[in-house]
Amino acid sequence: MSCWTGQYKDVQLLDNEFIIFSGPCSLESQQQVETQLSELNTNFVRAGIYKLRTEASSFQGLRSDGIELIKNLKKKYSFQFVSEVVSDSSAEALSKVVDYFQVGTRNMYNYELLKTLNSYNKPVILKRGFSATIKEWISAANYIDDAENRVILCERGVRSFEGSYRNMLDLNAVAYLKAHTNFKVIVDPSHGTGRKELILPLAKASLAVGADGIMIEAHPSPKDALSDKEQALNHQELKNIIDEMKILSPLFGKKVVY
Amino acid sequence: MSCWTGQYKDVQLLDNEFIIFSGPCSLESQQQVETQLSELNTNFVRAGIYKLRTEASSFQGLRSDGIELIKNLKKKYSFQFVSEVVSDSSAEALSKVVDYFQVGTRNMYNYELLKTLNSYNKPVILKRGFSATIKEWISAANYIDDAENRVILCERGVRSFEGSYRNMLDLNAVAYLKAHTNFKVIVDPSHGTGRKELILPLAKASLAVGADGIMIEAHPSPKDALSDKEQALNHQELKNIIDEMKILSPLFGKKVVY
Amino acid sequence: MSCWTGQYKDVQLLDNEFIIFSGPCSLESQQQVETQLSELNTNFVRAGIYKLRTEASSFQGLRSDGIELIKNLKKKYSFQFVSEVVSDSSAEALSKVVDYFQVGTRNMYNYELLKTLNSYNKPVILKRGFSATIKEWISAANYIDDAENRVILCERGVRSFEGSYRNMLDLNAVAYLKAHTNFKVIVDPSHGTGRKELILPLAKASLAVGADGIMIEAHPSPKDALSDKEQALNHQELKNIIDEMKILSPLFGKKVVY
Amino acid sequence: MSCWTGQYKDVQLLDNEFIIFSGPCSLESQQQVETQLSELNTNFVRAGIYKLRTEASSFQGLRSDGIELIKNLKKKYSFQFVSEVVSDSSAEALSKVVDYFQVGTRNMYNYELLKTLNSYNKPVILKRGFSATIKEWISAANYIDDAENRVILCERGVRSFEGSYRNMLDLNAVAYLKAHTNFKVIVDPSHGTGRKELILPLAKASLAVGADGIMIEAHPSPKDALSDKEQALNHQELKNIIDEMKILSPLFGKKVVY
Repeated sequence: MSCWTGQYKDVQLLDNEFIIFSGPCSLESQQQVETQLSELNTNFVRAGIYKLRTEASSFQGLRSDGIELIKNLKKKYSFQFVSEVVSDSSAEALSKVVDYFQVGTRNMYNYELLKTLNSYNKPVILKRGFSATIKEWISAANYIDDAENRVILCERGVRSFEGSYRNMLDLNAVAYLKAHTNFKVIVDPSHGTGRKELILPLAKASLAVGADGIMIEAHPSPKDALSDKEQALNHQELKNIIDEMKILSPLFGKKVVY
Repeated sequence: MSCWTGQYKDVQLLDNEFIIFSGPCSLESQQQVETQLSELNTNFVRAGIYKLRTEASSFQGLRSDGIELIKNLKKKYSFQFVSEVVSDSSAEALSKVVDYFQVGTRNMYNYELLKTLNSYNKPVILKRGFSATIKEWISAANYIDDAENRVILCERGVRSFEGSYRNMLDLNAVAYLKAHTNFKVIVDPSHGTGRKELILPLAKASLAVGADGIMIEAHPSPKDALSDKEQALNHQELKNIIDEMKILSPLFGKKVVY
Repeated sequence: MSCWTGQYKDVQLLDNEFIIFSGPCSLESQQQVETQLSELNTNFVRAGIYKLRTEASSFQGLRSDGIELIKNLKKKYSFQFVSEVVSDSSAEALSKVVDYFQVGTRNMYNYELLKTLNSYNKPVILKRGFSATIKEWISAANYIDDAENRVILCERGVRSFEGSYRNMLDLNAVAYLKAHTNFKVIVDPSHGTGRKELILPLAKASLAVGADGIMIEAHPSPKDALSDKEQALNHQELKNIIDEMKILSPLFGKKVVY
Repeated sequence: MSCWTGQYKDVQLLDNEFIIFSGPCSLESQQQVETQLSELNTNFVRAGIYKLRTEASSFQGLRSDGIELIKNLKKKYSFQFVSEVVSDSSAEALSKVVDYFQVGTRNMYNYELLKTLNSYNKPVILKRGFSATIKEWISAANYIDDAENRVILCERGVRSFEGSYRNMLDLNAVAYLKAHTNFKVIVDPSHGTGRKELILPLAKASLAVGADGIMIEAHPSPKDALSDKEQALNHQELKNIIDEMKILSPLFGKKVVY
C-alpha cells in the first residue's frame, strides 16, 4: 500500500479501505512467510515472534531469531509486518522490523507497556481485553499519544457462558465505535470464533457492520502449526476469504487491501 | 408471500428469502397498524398483545381487546401477523389471529408452554433466553414437534458485562446454527443492541452472516410508544433499513420479503 | 416448626432461624422420602414432582402420581413440603400438598405463572433466573402480593465463563438483598456449584454472609437418582452439613431448623 | 508474625492462620501509613506506589517518592509491606521495600512480568484477571518458580452482567482451589464488591468458605482518598472487621494475624 517512511501516519488505513492482515499465530520459519508472500501476494503479514502462552511450557516464540528472520525477509520482499509486543525489551527489538505493533488481549490493561510504545513512531493495533468494556478499551488506547490517528482497535471476541465457540465476537462494539469515535476498528474472526467454519461468515459480517478490516490466522499447513492450529486456515481457505471480501466490499463503499 | 391455509408449512421461509418482520413492541391501536400497512406496505407485522413486563405496574398489553383489533384488521388487510404467547390461555386466544407464535426470551425455558403450542398447527419464532446456551436453545425448540421445519430461532442478544448497549448480539450463534443445523434463524437487532444508531449496521451484519431474516421494532411515533420507546425506529428509518436490505441481499443470494 | 393453618404467614421463617430444605431433585418413590424422614428427621422436604428438563426426552417427573404419593405421606408423617410449580395446572394440583411453592430458575421471568400463584395463600420460594439481575429478581417477586412477607428469594448461582463448576454462586447478591430489602434469602449451593465437594464450604459461607437458610439436594442413593445425580449428596453427607450448621449458627445469631 | 530474612519461605502463611492485609489503594503520605500502624497496630500493610489507572489522566502513584517513604517508615516501624508491581523497573524499585509483591488483576496475563519476579526471592500475591478462568489463573501462577509455596492467589471478583455491585465475588473459586490445589488463597472483598456495606458480610463468608485471609482497602479519611474512595473503609470500620474475624476464626480452626 503506502511507502513506509518511519512515520505512523504513513501506514494508516484510508477511510475507504478494508485491510486484511493475515499470517500464522507464531512465526516458525522463513519459508513459512515466503510461502504466504508468493502464494497469496499479501502485503500485510502478521506473525507472532514473542508469544504469550497460557502454559509456561508451551512454545514461547522464536524471539531474537525471529527478528533476524524478518530482517532478512524484508531485504528480499516488500511487505508490511505486524507482530505482538509483550514487554519493553520486545518493543525495542520488534521496532526494527514491524510496521505496526500489536498489543494483545492479555496486555490491553498493561498501561506501562502502552506508554513505552510512545517512544516509537509506529501505529498500534490494540486488541480488546478478554472482557474489557468499550470504555476501558478506549481509555487504554488513550495511553498512546494521538490515539485516534495511531491506534487501530481490534475486536477479537469476549468471554462468555457459551461453550460452542471459543469467544463471542462482539460486532455491536464495532458498530458502536464507528458511530461514536474516530478510531479505525478491525475484527479478528479467527480468535473471535475459534472455529474454522465460522470465520468466513463472521468476516463478511465484519465488513457489513462497518469494520475497517480483519485479521485472519493462516498457516501453510495448519495441522503442523506450533500454536492455535485448530483455528488456522490454510492458504486456499485464506484466498477464498480475500476473494469474497473483494466481491462484497464495493457494495459497502470499501476497497480491499491485503 | 405465501397463502395461509392453516398449516405451519405454508408460512415457512424459503431458503433464498430474507424476511423482515416489523412493528411495534406493543399493539396500541388499530390506526397504529394501519399506518404501518399503508405507509410501508409490509406483509409481516409483529406486535405484542400480551406483554411480559419486568415491572408489574408497567403496561401489560391490550390483551383481549387486541385480539379483536387484529381480527378486524385482518378483514380489511392481507398481512401475516406475529405476536408473543405468554400462557396457555393467551395461546388459545392468539391462535385466532396469529400466523406465527412468538415465544419471548423470558419464556424460552418454559417447556410447558412450548408443549402447549403443539396443539396449534402454526410456526413458532423462538427467541433465545437471556443467557441461554445454543444447546439449551435447540433443546427448547425440540419441545415443538417437527422442530427444524416449524421453529424459527431468533437471536436477540445475550446478557454481558458491557454497559454501552442493552444486550450483546451474538452473530457467532447465527453462523453456528446455519452451519450445524437446519433451523431457520433470524436476528432481532432492536433488542440485540437497544440503541437506534446500531440497528442498521447490525441488520446488515445479520444478512452477511447468513441469517434468514430480521425483526425490527418500529412505531409511527416512537416517542409516544407505550414500551421500549428508546429503541423503536420511526417508519422512515424502518423503510431505510428495508431499502438497504433490498440492495444488499442479492449479493448474498437472498431476496427480501417484508 | 410452625403449625400450618393454610395461611402463608404461618410458615414464614423467623429472623433468627436458619432453615435447611433438603431432598431429592425428583420425587421417585414413597420409600425415598420415608427414608429421609426416618434417617434424618427432617421437617422441610423439597422434591420435584413436575420437572422442567432441558431435554424433552428426560424424565419429566411423577406428576399426578407424585401428588397422591405426597398426600399419603402427609397422612403418616408431619413435614412441610416444597415442590416446583411449572404451569397453572401444576399449581392447582400442587396446592393440595405443598406448604411452599417453588418457582424455578427457568420460570423466574414467567410473570403469568407468578400472578397465578396469588390465588393460593402460600409462601413462594423464588429462584433467581440464570442471569437475572437483582433488580429483575425483585421485580419478579413483586408480581406476588405482599411479596416481602411471602416470597423467599433463593440464590442458586448464575451463568458465567467459568467451566470448573456448573454455576457461579453469587453471595454478593445475598449480602446486597439482606442490606437493602426485607426479603428472606436462602441459598442453593447444590445447583450453585454443581460439585459435591464444594457444597459444604459454600453452605458455611451462605450462613456467614447472612442468608436465612439453604436448600440441599440429597438422595438415599445418589448414583441411582433419576436427575442431577452428580450433585446429590447421600444422607450421611447431608447429615454432616446439618450438624456443621448447628455448630456454626449460634455464632451468627441463628438457630438451625431443618 | 515471622521474621523477614529475605527468603520467600519466611513470610508464608501457616495453615492455621487467617491473614488480614489492609491499607489504602494508593500510598499518599508517610502520615497515612503511620496513622494505620499506630491506630490499628497492623503488621501487614498494603499500599499502591505504582498505580495502573484506567484513565491516563488519573493519579499514577507516588512512584520513586513512595519507595523512599516506605524505606523511612521501615526504619521506624516493624511491618510487612505489600505493593503492586507493574513493570520490570517497578519490580526492581519495589524489591527494596516490599515483603510481598502484588500482581494486579490487569497484569495476571502479563507473563513477562511474572517471569521477571523469579529474579527476586519474595512471595507473590497474584490477583485473578477480570474474567480469568481458574485454569488460566493457576497457569499464570506457574510462571513463578515453586508456585504453590510462593504464590498466594487472591480472588477479587469477576466481571458480570450484574450492575448492583462493581464485581461478582467468586467464592466457589476459593472452595475449588482449596479442594484441588495446595495454593494459599485470599479474598479481596473491597474490590470484590465495590460497596462498603457488603465488605463485612463477604469477609465473614471468605473465612467460612476456607480462605486463608482477606485484603481490605482502608484509609484514614476515605473521602479524601486519591483513588477508589467509594469502597475504602475508615480505620474504625477496618477495626470492626478485624475484631469480627478474631471472634469467628477459632470456629473455623484459624487464628487471625493482621
